[in-house]
Amino acid sequence: MTPNLQPFTTLMDLELGSLVPHRQTLERRLSDMPGYYLDGAGEDGDPLVYRVHMIPVAETNAEIQCSTTVLEPGTVGDEYYMTKGHFHQIRDRSEIYIGLAGEGRLVMATEDGRHAVEPIHPGTVSYVPGGWAHRSVNVGGDRLVFFAAYVGDAGHDYGTIAERGLPVMVVAGPDGPDVIANPRYGA
Amino acid sequence: MTPNLQPFTTLMDLELGSLVPHRQTLERRLSDMPGYYLDGAGEDGDPLVYRVHMIPVAETNAEIQCSTTVLEPGTVGDEYYMTKGHFHQIRDRSEIYIGLAGEGRLVMATEDGRHAVEPIHPGTVSYVPGGWAHRSVNVGGDRLVFFAAYVGDAGHDYGTIAERGLPVMVVAGPDGPDVIANPRYGA
Repeated sequence: MTPNLQPFTTLMDLELGSLVPHRQTLERRLSDMPGYYLDGAGEDGDPLVYRVHMIPVAETNAEIQCSTTVLEPGTVGDEYYMTKGHFHQIRDRSEIYIGLAGEGRLVMATEDGRHAVEPIHPGTVSYVPGGWAHRSVNVGGDRLVFFAAYVGDAGHDYGTIAERGLPVMVVAGPDGPDVIANPRYGA
Repeated sequence: MTPNLQPFTTLMDLELGSLVPHRQTLERRLSDMPGYYLDGAGEDGDPLVYRVHMIPVAETNAEIQCSTTVLEPGTVGDEYYMTKGHFHQIRDRSEIYIGLAGEGRLVMATEDGRHAVEPIHPGTVSYVPGGWAHRSVNVGGDRLVFFAAYVGDAGHDYGTIAERGLPVMVVAGPDGPDVIANPRYGA
């Protein structure tokens, strides 16, 4: 084959998650996540929750989509700041996460209600198999930074999680992060 | 879908490239690379050139194959230690490299003889588009360590490079690494 795409390099700050040259950034503030937190009301202002820096390529199964996510520290009520979470539109597509800075949890769930929680910290390589929705949660006092890569045509289905939630939530307990059942799951 | 695979975590040493739990390791000594170096004869002993630590998953286009490569410092004649290099068996499958430690070059080439050379050092995210053969070269005095991820069904075609070589080679010049034409290319 005669390839159309030329090789290229992006410089990633391994602690801050920034990309140079700057590619494409998605920003989520608390107002972008209505209904995601159990105790969503009564927050002051509209804080930044996370940014995703992307290296976008064509959405085909020949490509690898790469991004870094920078999740701010904080809570809403006792729920830690988290990403929206999604299934892949093509359900069987897998994803990997590499922890770079901070401390977090990767919360995953299947459509039939199983869940799994894995740690994220510098050096963790998490494998999110096809069929598992995934959300990251910052349980530390500093920014959580990780790199993610997935099969290029996976696509995003945010709606299922927005409507049903995930079976568990991660909250600040007296002795640190607790994983508890989500009382609104499936409602 | 009801997934069969459970999420799992591997701990990667971000400087040494080791994986815990240990997954699968491939080791290449100089004797495993006959004909790869221009000045292949006359080397003493059979030094280790590189190791690849893999997190193997099913070879389907739903999965992401991940590995770390640890390339020793050294030269054969004036050619820096390098990996064998390969095309993907499914030619259009892409790959990404993340530089973790050391200093190297990513040498790439198309079947019709174009070439590209990109740097590898901590924080580089290199995009190897489909159709580009790829080989890494350690041009520094320390180990070169990088992480790689590619679409699960890509497969490896080592034969084309073993027979034809790549259009360029990276050699130790008087002022540092030089990229020069490979006199044996295509021969």
